[in-house]
Formats: sequence, C-alpha cells, structure tokens
Amino acid sequence: MAEPRLLALTMGEPGGVGPEIALKAYAALKSSGPGFFVVGDPRAFPETAITVVSDPSAAAGAFATALPVLDTGTRAQVTPGTADPASAPAVISAIERAVALAIAGEAAAVVTNPIEKASLNAAGWRWPGHTEFIEHLTSGAPMPNGRRRGAVMMIAGPSLRTVPVTIHQSVREAAAQLSAESIVQKAQITFEALQTDFGIAQPRLAIAGLNPHAGEKGTIGREDEDIVAPAVAELRAIYGDAITGPHPADTLFHEEARARYDAALCMLHDQALIPAKTLAFHQAVNVTLGLPIIRTSPDHGTARDIAGKGIARADSLIAAIKLAASLAGARACA
Amino acid sequence: MAEPRLLALTMGEPGGVGPEIALKAYAALKSSGPGFFVVGDPRAFPETAITVVSDPSAAAGAFATALPVLDTGTRAQVTPGTADPASAPAVISAIERAVALAIAGEAAAVVTNPIEKASLNAAGWRWPGHTEFIEHLTSGAPMPNGRRRGAVMMIAGPSLRTVPVTIHQSVREAAAQLSAESIVQKAQITFEALQTDFGIAQPRLAIAGLNPHAGEKGTIGREDEDIVAPAVAELRAIYGDAITGPHPADTLFHEEARARYDAALCMLHDQALIPAKTLAFHQAVNVTLGLPIIRTSPDHGTARDIAGKGIARADSLIAAIKLAASLAGARACA
Repeated sequence: MAEPRLLALTMGEPGGVGPEIALKAYAALKSSGPGFFVVGDPRAFPETAITVVSDPSAAAGAFATALPVLDTGTRAQVTPGTADPASAPAVISAIERAVALAIAGEAAAVVTNPIEKASLNAAGWRWPGHTEFIEHLTSGAPMPNGRRRGAVMMIAGPSLRTVPVTIHQSVREAAAQLSAESIVQKAQITFEALQTDFGIAQPRLAIAGLNPHAGEKGTIGREDEDIVAPAVAELRAIYGDAITGPHPADTLFHEEARARYDAALCMLHDQALIPAKTLAFHQAVNVTLGLPIIRTSPDHGTARDIAGKGIARADSLIAAIKLAASLAGARACA
Repeated sequence: MAEPRLLALTMGEPGGVGPEIALKAYAALKSSGPGFFVVGDPRAFPETAITVVSDPSAAAGAFATALPVLDTGTRAQVTPGTADPASAPAVISAIERAVALAIAGEAAAVVTNPIEKASLNAAGWRWPGHTEFIEHLTSGAPMPNGRRRGAVMMIAGPSLRTVPVTIHQSVREAAAQLSAESIVQKAQITFEALQTDFGIAQPRLAIAGLNPHAGEKGTIGREDEDIVAPAVAELRAIYGDAITGPHPADTLFHEEARARYDAALCMLHDQALIPAKTLAFHQAVNVTLGLPIIRTSPDHGTARDIAGKGIARADSLIAAIKLAASLAGARACA
C-alpha cells in the first residue's frame, strides 16, 4: 500500500513567524496528523528539529520523528524580524515547488505560510499577492470534474464561512466596481466548492447587500436594487431557494442567522472579515476556492514584530492544515 | 423621601410588537426593577394588564401591581400587524410627552419603543427618524455640566460599544462625505458620555479605519491617510493615548482587541453594527449620546410580521431599560 500523501507547507517569509509556527504545528499534529512537510530552505529551522528530505515520498516515513523539510536548494537570508529581499528567490521557489507537487499529486494540498509582499516586490516579483501567483502557477492544470475556474477567497472558521466579492479595494472603488457578473461568478465557484471540497450535498448561500439595511428598497443607495438583487435573481434561477438575499449585513451573522446558510457572500472586505475574525480570531483560515489544487493559509501576516520570540500562536496554521486535509479528502472522494 | 423616579417608555407603533414587549419587560422587571411606565394610549394594552395613571408620581406606587400607563389622551388605531397613519398623532404625542417628562425631571430617562417611520411620514411627520425628532424636542434644554451637544448613536452590548460615524448612507456616500470634523465631534461626544453617563473615569476610544486594512498606508484608498488619521491626531492632541487608530476594522472586535478600549468609533454603519449584532443580537441596545436627557431604545424595528402572536422577544427592550436606568444613575451622580 502506498504511503498516504502529505500536505505541502511553504516556508513563507523566513524572517517572519512561519518557521516557528510550522514547528509548533508539527508538535501539535505529530501524533494525530494530518501529516505535512515544509517546502523551503532547511536553514530557516533549527537543525535538530527537522529532517531534510529530498522528495515527498520520504516525508511520510520521517513525519513521526521530526518535521520533514523538502529542500528546494535555494538559500534564504534568515534573520528573525527582517524580510530580506535576498530571500525572495527561496520564498518564491518554495511556493512554485509546493504547487507543482500538488498538481502532480505528490502532495495532497498546499498550505502557505505568510509572505512579505513588499520584500518580494522589491526583488522583482510582480504579483499582487500569493493568490494571484498560485492562480498563475495552476493555470495549465485541469479543474476537477469540469468545475469553474477562478480564485475566490473564503474565510472559514468553526461556525462561519464568508466570501468577500470585493477584496483589497477602497470601499469607494468596491462600490463603484461591484457587478452582478462578479457576484454570480463567485457564488457559482463557492457553490461548487461547498459541494465538492466541503462535501455539502445541498449548499445554501446567503448573499449580503452592499449598503446599510441592504439599501432599504433603494432609499440608501441604488446598488442593492440594481446590482445585488439581479445577481440573486440570476442565481435563484439556477439554484432555486438555496440562494437567498440581498440580506442586511448587520443581522446576518448571529447564531440563529448563521444556521440558515453554509456560506455568506459579502460585498466588502470588512463585511466578510469582521464577523469571521470577531467570532474566531485565532481559528479563521483563508481558503482559495476555484483552483485545480486545494490551497489554504493561516489568516494572518508574517508578524515580523514577534518573530523569533517564541510567542507566536500556531492556531490558525493548525486550523489551515486540518482544513486542507479535510478538503483534500472530500475532493478525492467526490 | 420622594418616590424614586421611574423611566418613561414610549408606546411606539401600536401595530408592532411594542405593547407586547412592554408587558414582557414588565413581567421580567416587576420585582427587581428598574421601574418604568408606558406613555401612550392605554387601549394598545389589555385592560387587565395595566394601571392607567395620570401623572408620573402615581406610577411609582402602581408599578408593583401592574404596568403603569400614562394616558396622553390621544387615541391610536390599534390593529396588530398594521401601522395605521391614523395612529400617528398618538405615537408622536407619546414621544413628546415622555421627552418633556425627562426634561422636567419627572422621568429618569426615556426608552423608546420602535416606530414605523413611513406611517408617521404619511401622516405628515417630517423627521428622518426618532433620534432627530428627540434632538429637536430637547434643543431648548441645557446640556449637563457644559457637555457638548449633538445626537450620536451608540450600539451598546454586554462586551462591545460601537459608534457609527456615518449611519444611513450608502457606502459610496459615506466614503465621500466622511470628514475629520465629524469624526472628532462624535469622538468628543462619545468620550464625554463614557465619562459622565457610563461612569468611566479614563475612557479609551479606538478609531477604526474606513478601508480594508485601514487603507494599508494609502495603497487601498486615501481616506484613512487624509481624513481618519488627521482626526486621530487631533484627538490625541486633546486626550493623549486614550485615543488609538486608525485600526484595521477586521481585527478590532475579537475578545483580546475589545479589552483595549471602552468604545470603538466606526466609519460605516455595518462596520459598527456587524460586530455589535454578531456578538449580542438580542442584547444590543441603541443609545443616543449627546442629548440633555438619557435616551435608549431596543435595537430592532416594529417587527409587525410577528405582532400579536406572542412570540416577540423582549430581551433588547429589557436591556434598554436596564441600561437607561444605569446611565441615569451615573449622570445623576456625575
């Protein structure tokens, strides 16, 4: 029988908390699993805490003894607290290798440790973020079961999943650029991911309105009448009563409301992120839906200010690893 | 010794849940207090459940036996589920009378049951809402201790107080009209209310940014750099380290973050209302700061769809009554 496939965890910014939380996650998951290996420069870790492996198949056997690190052969500049652009090639090659392993089926999924975008950009990396880069790296791989392609960010916590339709845009730009087309597209990708990756046979999606009180019949802005409601109508024509909205966002996230849907589509970054992080600050996981591979990440940054101090919490990374394993399992059975 | 002053609760829309939740609140508070009396048309209530009184001083003695109702003499059209514009004079006179009693010191505070704005507007009432009307009614009364005047909405729950700087505006208008002046003014009124009404000697105010990640140094919209940050600087020049911000809104409302402030000033309606209602849907109370009188209200509408069915929850009204009593007590001692 083949060894079970492990998850590939990227090193992330070696000057941030990534190496530290990887070791803490390893300590927490060593006996119970899910098994994973780091992809990156082994020198970002204390030598005695890891086992350097040269291919993923060796990682499974090593996991019981020490954290397996798959050496990409590209060296980083490791100084806790500092994001050195000299590390960019090592950070980038770790992502490239982890994604390639997942596409090839040699890793069950990719979990990404936080990166320092400004540092990578300074070294010539031209992507706005992790997600766009991974979308690019997977563009040649087929989607499973003919599913729709398109990177969609979901924040998944123990009691709430939210998907922001607009993300890193000012509220003014987000309102100006919101379109029924983008709502419908992200809703469909979310719906299919809930079915195939989350194993929910009949997913229910709640669509939030953009404005206070979902626009109160057009008296508080026109976008909810002119953009969100038509998108909801289009989605209901496809999925029926599984789609509801536009809902006033302020009454959408308390316990009784959450029981009525499996994911909420939100129109603004904070509309999605505020309830997710208010309810589960340390457990929230960032999941990228709509990719040929499974990809999750902890929902925090490199936290360079506390790097190397031993105080970083690995909760979100552990949740990201567990969720990635669960999604990979569901997709494999779909 | 004089009878203790009771709170005045307005009847609100008689076709909504107001009368029902008033009776439920009475049942819950009858033995423990705080004592209150309804101002309105006694015919909105079952005759046997109330005692009609003609002045507030009679209400205190009656409270132990039945819900006291101060008859305004103006008759409403009472049909559960229907907001009849014919009731407008009764609804409005109840608010006028309750506010007058609070100004005269014959009621400790005003708690308002929800009204149906559209119905009042149809009958010629020209105010955008409850708050503006009460601001008008109290405009001739002096502010206590030379405090700043100006109605400011706060949502107060057991573990979070938020103040939206913009309220019933579309996000596009809110972003366009946000000004440092309005942030500073609302922060000052909030600060003074926390001191005098909430009894917090050294209040701490957290100011949220408008855009995702508080604008990420101007790369996600300019408003946080150009409007919010200068307002924070101006406030810090007055209050020092008690004022912090602009904070990314998504990481401002989890438990550890909430421990760092007494109230959060938010730039958008949903930024304030989402965390408040996610954390305490049934206990959130609407408080109007910056008035010569204390005024609270339950944080929900008339709920006409469930009026007369006996299923309305009085939690928010009970919380509003308790908070009004506490604020009135603190203000009296300030």
